[in-house]
Amino acid sequence: MIQLNTYEKKLSEQISSLKKSSGSHPPSIYTVIKSLENLSIKVDSCFLSNPYATEIFLKYFNDDIIENNKIRDLVEFYPSQNSVIAESLAKTIDIPKENILIGNGTIEIIQYLSLFLSIKKMVLILPTFSSYYEFLPKDTSIIHYTLNKEEDFQLNIDNYIKFVKIHQPDTIVLINPNNPNGRYIDLIKLEYICESLKEVSNIIIDESFIHFAYEDETLSPVSSSYFIHKFCNVTIIKSMSKDFGIAGIRAGYCLLPKIKIEQILSKGFLWNSNGLSEYFFDLYSRSNFQKEYEEVRTQYIKQSISFFHSLKSIDQIKAYSSKANFALIELLDGSKSFEFVHKLLIKNGIYTRDCEDKIGLNGEFVRIASRKDEENQYTLSAIKNLYK
Amino acid sequence: MIQLNTYEKKLSEQISSLKKSSGSHPPSIYTVIKSLENLSIKVDSCFLSNPYATEIFLKYFNDDIIENNKIRDLVEFYPSQNSVIAESLAKTIDIPKENILIGNGTIEIIQYLSLFLSIKKMVLILPTFSSYYEFLPKDTSIIHYTLNKEEDFQLNIDNYIKFVKIHQPDTIVLINPNNPNGRYIDLIKLEYICESLKEVSNIIIDESFIHFAYEDETLSPVSSSYFIHKFCNVTIIKSMSKDFGIAGIRAGYCLLPKIKIEQILSKGFLWNSNGLSEYFFDLYSRSNFQKEYEEVRTQYIKQSISFFHSLKSIDQIKAYSSKANFALIELLDGSKSFEFVHKLLIKNGIYTRDCEDKIGLNGEFVRIASRKDEENQYTLSAIKNLYK
Repeated sequence: MIQLNTYEKKLSEQISSLKKSSGSHPPSIYTVIKSLENLSIKVDSCFLSNPYATEIFLKYFNDDIIENNKIRDLVEFYPSQNSVIAESLAKTIDIPKENILIGNGTIEIIQYLSLFLSIKKMVLILPTFSSYYEFLPKDTSIIHYTLNKEEDFQLNIDNYIKFVKIHQPDTIVLINPNNPNGRYIDLIKLEYICESLKEVSNIIIDESFIHFAYEDETLSPVSSSYFIHKFCNVTIIKSMSKDFGIAGIRAGYCLLPKIKIEQILSKGFLWNSNGLSEYFFDLYSRSNFQKEYEEVRTQYIKQSISFFHSLKSIDQIKAYSSKANFALIELLDGSKSFEFVHKLLIKNGIYTRDCEDKIGLNGEFVRIASRKDEENQYTLSAIKNLYK
Repeated sequence: MIQLNTYEKKLSEQISSLKKSSGSHPPSIYTVIKSLENLSIKVDSCFLSNPYATEIFLKYFNDDIIENNKIRDLVEFYPSQNSVIAESLAKTIDIPKENILIGNGTIEIIQYLSLFLSIKKMVLILPTFSSYYEFLPKDTSIIHYTLNKEEDFQLNIDNYIKFVKIHQPDTIVLINPNNPNGRYIDLIKLEYICESLKEVSNIIIDESFIHFAYEDETLSPVSSSYFIHKFCNVTIIKSMSKDFGIAGIRAGYCLLPKIKIEQILSKGFLWNSNGLSEYFFDLYSRSNFQKEYEEVRTQYIKQSISFFHSLKSIDQIKAYSSKANFALIELLDGSKSFEFVHKLLIKNGIYTRDCEDKIGLNGEFVRIASRKDEENQYTLSAIKNLYK
């Protein structure tokens, strides 16, 4: 079992109190470093992003903006309006601009939809990303459909459809791959769910981790964006923070029927992008960037597969199957999840996600993100060392 | 009178259609340049910001971030949560962090308050910034209090208070200095308005241009922030885009009673900052930055005073008094405002704000921002040339 020494216990208490004050999301790496000067963070495995993609973005940013002395343009002037940026994205993802709303990160979209869709009853798959229930009006009825660890957190499609039909919610949320467990629903099955649940007013599909998923060994990109043409009750939500490694610039979007986009834009969302995110959406439309990104996307998936495979070989933990860029692990040796997380952080500078506040998880769970290959190797030996 | 030749007429039609498609706000300088390749913009006098402040920001940004190779931190990781950034701003503006909500620009705050203050009846001073009425629910009753050009657009305080008392709105908005006319209400008078209207549930004071205002020749900074301690019905809104010349990074805030901030944060606004805006709020707290900023603030005010003074000397226009960084001018020679604006843009590359869509303005009005001194001089001679 993992033991904290006196020094570690003291720091551990400080980390706990920091976490408590940051609500249901762990404090950012900045906040942790600022507040606890004794810590040095070597690997941020709490944070779900592709670090190689960050590097490509930075390379282009350096060449286009820094070297060309264009930073002033991004800083000084208002970004373009939502519909203008949507137009640039429309060509890239081959979806009409009238169906696209650009968000200041997807959190802004989730927050807005929570209020705008007049949700009265929601079926939510547990475990989940807490913002899907936290921002809802207090009188919203939330019905939990809990994934079982005994079934490897895989969604039982027919069972789920039956559950939704019995409870008759106006809204369901499907995060694919799901956070925090990483299980993926094949598109054909997801389409079958939507076909079967046409009576549900809002089917929200969150594809924020979809670039890490795959359906065969070619690792070709998958996406349910085309559902927007088939189902008028589907909303697709897509964060760019994870796959492109750019959480700091706040870029995301959602796909909605044209009439809903018009309603939302009449209430604001005019200049909710910033100079950096506008630059990103422009960059994303360029074929040379796309090609380089596709290379690091598949490279990263391969490394993640290998990392998760190695985690499975550690006896004291169980690493659940994942097609996202993180794996959920369960501690089997009687250690508490906070002991695992704080020990790794204090001793090795590895920041992982304690899932003790995630509802629907029965046991001691930690979410570990795949980072760079050498970081994953470092994390692997650190975890093995914990159990020596 | 201003005449457009055949070439200018054709371009003018294109600019008009571009403006039409961008709604009630003029298209950004980017959108204009992208869409009309024949145009080159030399001076963006549509845009209301202090260009000298932009330069200070960029100097620090270059030294702190670019030179120190810290750009990755801003791009890759999530920004800190709202309350963490509020804490950093709290020290700078000497207001408790519990009263501060950080916005993704003030437009996000205006948009949010428009929906969540449950505004039923609003008294709005005309002319105004259109977002204050555009985002309101359709059934909101909006009562206009129109400033007269015959009174130089100055607010008649007692008359206004009487008007509000008769109409009994739940919300009033005071932009100080007002946009688009630039007239300023002395703090003592503003305080008198708040004292007299304690029965109004929401008094929104927008201070987005307050750094350009002054009450005596020392040009010392003024602010009504302290009202937050005196009146529980006051909301102060503050954009950083204008005074700091950083519209592209989207930074703004509002001051509200603690209980309202808590309610709003429970609905979201978690990560609505970005890496650049978080950096700005940190920079804003540093005394060396504050000192340099204060120097360019007063320098810019002096140049603006001189620019507006020179505009007053042109016979064919009337430049109204302003304590903001822009002046409202009225065309007296029978020219249409779009002819003035398009001619200046096509012939001289100067982008100014056609006010034909501003309700409450009776006549042909254009808003001209003060930019750098040499740009102001260029704009002055260009306008004089229009009338040769």
